Amino acid sequence: MRDVAVIGMGLTPFGELWDTSLRDLFAIACADCLEDAGVARDQVQSAYIGCMTSGLFVGQEHLASVLCDYAGLRGLAATRVESACASGGAAFRAAYLEVASGASDFVLAGGVEKMNDGADATYCLATAADQEYEAYNGVTFPGLYAMIAKAHMAKHGTTPQQLAAVAVKNHRNGAKNPKAQFPLEISEKTVLGAVRVAEPLGLFDCSPVTDGAACVLLAPVEFARKLGKPVVKIIGSGHATDAIALHDRKDPSTIPVVALAAQRAFKQSGLTIRDIDFAEVHDCFTIAEIVCTEELGIFEPGQGGPAAAAGKTARDGEFPVNTSGGLKSKGHPVGATGIAQICELYAQLTGNAGGRQLKNPRRGLAQNMGGSGGSCTVHILEVEQ
Amino acid sequence: MRDVAVIGMGLTPFGELWDTSLRDLFAIACADCLEDAGVARDQVQSAYIGCMTSGLFVGQEHLASVLCDYAGLRGLAATRVESACASGGAAFRAAYLEVASGASDFVLAGGVEKMNDGADATYCLATAADQEYEAYNGVTFPGLYAMIAKAHMAKHGTTPQQLAAVAVKNHRNGAKNPKAQFPLEISEKTVLGAVRVAEPLGLFDCSPVTDGAACVLLAPVEFARKLGKPVVKIIGSGHATDAIALHDRKDPSTIPVVALAAQRAFKQSGLTIRDIDFAEVHDCFTIAEIVCTEELGIFEPGQGGPAAAAGKTARDGEFPVNTSGGLKSKGHPVGATGIAQICELYAQLTGNAGGRQLKNPRRGLAQNMGGSGGSCTVHILEVEQ
Repeated sequence: MRDVAVIGMGLTPFGELWDTSLRDLFAIACADCLEDAGVARDQVQSAYIGCMTSGLFVGQEHLASVLCDYAGLRGLAATRVESACASGGAAFRAAYLEVASGASDFVLAGGVEKMNDGADATYCLATAADQEYEAYNGVTFPGLYAMIAKAHMAKHGTTPQQLAAVAVKNHRNGAKNPKAQFPLEISEKTVLGAVRVAEPLGLFDCSPVTDGAACVLLAPVEFARKLGKPVVKIIGSGHATDAIALHDRKDPSTIPVVALAAQRAFKQSGLTIRDIDFAEVHDCFTIAEIVCTEELGIFEPGQGGPAAAAGKTARDGEFPVNTSGGLKSKGHPVGATGIAQICELYAQLTGNAGGRQLKNPRRGLAQNMGGSGGSCTVHILEVEQ
Repeated sequence: MRDVAVIGMGLTPFGELWDTSLRDLFAIACADCLEDAGVARDQVQSAYIGCMTSGLFVGQEHLASVLCDYAGLRGLAATRVESACASGGAAFRAAYLEVASGASDFVLAGGVEKMNDGADATYCLATAADQEYEAYNGVTFPGLYAMIAKAHMAKHGTTPQQLAAVAVKNHRNGAKNPKAQFPLEISEKTVLGAVRVAEPLGLFDCSPVTDGAACVLLAPVEFARKLGKPVVKIIGSGHATDAIALHDRKDPSTIPVVALAAQRAFKQSGLTIRDIDFAEVHDCFTIAEIVCTEELGIFEPGQGGPAAAAGKTARDGEFPVNTSGGLKSKGHPVGATGIAQICELYAQLTGNAGGRQLKNPRRGLAQNMGGSGGSCTVHILEVEQ
C-alpha cells in the first residue's frame, strides 16, 4: 500500500443554514478544499461522500453524482457512502484505500447533511437504530444514550456533574472555532438546569441538529512532500461494526465497537494511545465522549467522567479531546461529522487551528461513530517532522 | 495494485418476496455466497453493500452494520454505498479496490433492495433524478426514458418493434434463469399491445419492481488459484458520473456516462469491446439496452435497435447481451442489480449458467447505470485459461 496524505481541507459554517441547499453546502466545502490544496478540479479522479439520509431529509438519492456535478467535478468516479453518523469516517477510509491502492492519485473525501429542511430530524435519525426492534417501538437516540448513561452511572458512579463537564469544556473550545454552530461558553449550572430531553440527559448534553459540509483531499505522500506545506500522513485506519440495537450487546455501559476500530488502527500504525497527542471523539451526547475516551484507552473504564471533571481533556489538559468544540458545540451534520473531525486534526497538525491551537501536536486521532455504537471508524494522522 | 478474483457468488430469488425482510434477503445471499466460495465467516474482513434507498423503502439506514450482523458477520468493517441503480456496481468497485490495495484479503461485495414493502416505489425511485429540477416537477423514470426513446427514434429511426425485440430476447433468456422474477417467454405482439406506461414505452418495455439480494466474494488471485476452480479475474474497473438531470446533458438520445466508464475499464485492461465475448447491460427499460450497447461500442450509434431486431444480441448471436434475462425479466432490485450482473458473468465464465450457458466464454462485461445516466460502472471479468 502507498503512503497517503491529507493535502487540503474545506468546511462550511455549521448551523441552521436555511438559505443554503444540500448541493450548495457540498459545493462550498469542496471549493474551499481544492483551493486550500492548490489542486485543479480536473486532477481529482474520484470522490467518496458521506451522507446518512438525504433521501429522507430532502428526497435526494444518487447523491454523489449530483453533488460532484454542482461542485464542478462532473465526470469523475463519485460514490456516496453511508454508515449513519459514521458516514464521514467511512468515506474517508474508502478514499484512503483508493489512493493507497494506486488506482487514483487525488481522491476527495467529503461529508454533508442538510437536516433543517422539512423532514422530522428525530424520525430521520432513528433510522440509524434497529428499525424492527428499536425505532418501530418508539426509541429515539436521546433515549438510547440515556440508557447508556444510566448504565454507566450504575456501574461506575458517573455523575451528572461529570457529564456537564464535557459540555462545558467542548463549548469552551467551540467558542474559539469560527465555524461552530454554538460558539459560546456555558456554565455547569446552565447544563444541569436545562430542560430534560431523556433523563439523565438534558438539552446541553445533546449535540444539535445541524446543516453543514466538510471535505478533505487525499494524495500520495510523495506528492504532498512537494507542496512546501507540513505533510500530514494517514498512519492508521480502523473500521468496525457491531449490532446496531443496544439490547443486542452485552453491556450497555460500554461501546465495544470503538475499542475494536481503535485496535485495528493502532495495529496498522504500530502505536498505542500513549503515542497520540490529542483526539476528536464522537460526542453526540456528553455520555458518548466519556464512554469513548474509555474505549479508546485514554482513560480506564469508569475514569472517563472523573477525568473530564478534573480537566484532563481540556485544551491544556494531559489529553485534549475535541479541541474543535466537538459535535456538542461545533454542531453535528451527521454525514459531515467524520470529515470535520479530520479537518480539525489537519488544522491542528499544520498549525492552523487559530485560537484553539495546541502546542506542536504530532499525532491526532479521529473517532467517528454510527448510531448507539453499531459502527465506528478510527483514523490516526501524523505530521512529518 | 494486486490482482483480484471473484471466488464465489450468492443470489436470492428475485420477485415480490412479501415474507422475506430486507435483512433476511441479504443474509440468504451472503450465506449462499460464502458457502459457494468455501470461506468461513471469520475470514471475511470487510464488506461493501449497495443499496439505493432503504431509508425511504423500509425506514432503515445504518444499513451495512445491521445487514452484516444478521448475516453472522458482526464486527467486520462494513459500509453501504449508494449511487442509485448503480449502487451494486459501486459496491463491487470499492470492494475490488480494497483487495487490490492489500488492506484486506477477503472482501464481500453485496447489494440489496426491498421495494415491495410499503413505500411508493415511483416516489422512492424518483429520488435518483434531480430532486429540485426533475422529481419536484413530477417527472418519473418511465417518463425520462420515454424522452430518451423519443429522441433516439427521432435521430436514428429506432422503432417500437426494435424496442420490443429487446424485451422478447431478455424474457427468452430469463426463462432459463431459475432466479428470475418473470421467467417466461413473451411475444412481440404482447409487448406492442401492452398498456402504455409513458409513450412510447409500454408495460413490457419497463423492468419490474423487485425484492432481492446478491453477493460476491473477492480475494487475491493467488488465493483463487489454490481453490481448484476456474479463476475469474477482475481485469478492468471503470466508474464515471454525469449530470443526473436529463436536461443538463447535451443530447438526450445518448448516455455518455456509459462510454466514459467503459473507456476507463478498457484502458485499465488494455482491451477493446472486440475482445469481449458477452455483456450484462443495464436494461432498466428496453431503450436503455439499445442506447447502452451503442455507448459501449458493441454497435455503432443508431445501430442498437436494428441489431437487437436482427438477433445479434441473442444467446446465439454475435454478441450475447443479458443472458441472465436482464433487469427486464430477471427483475431489478436496484441496489442488488450491479452485483447480480457480476454473478451472471461469474456463472457464465465458470460454466455454471445452466440452460443459458454460453459456449466457453472467456471475457464478460457488466455495465450498471444510475438514474437516467448520472452514474455508471463498467467491470470486465476474465477467466484464466
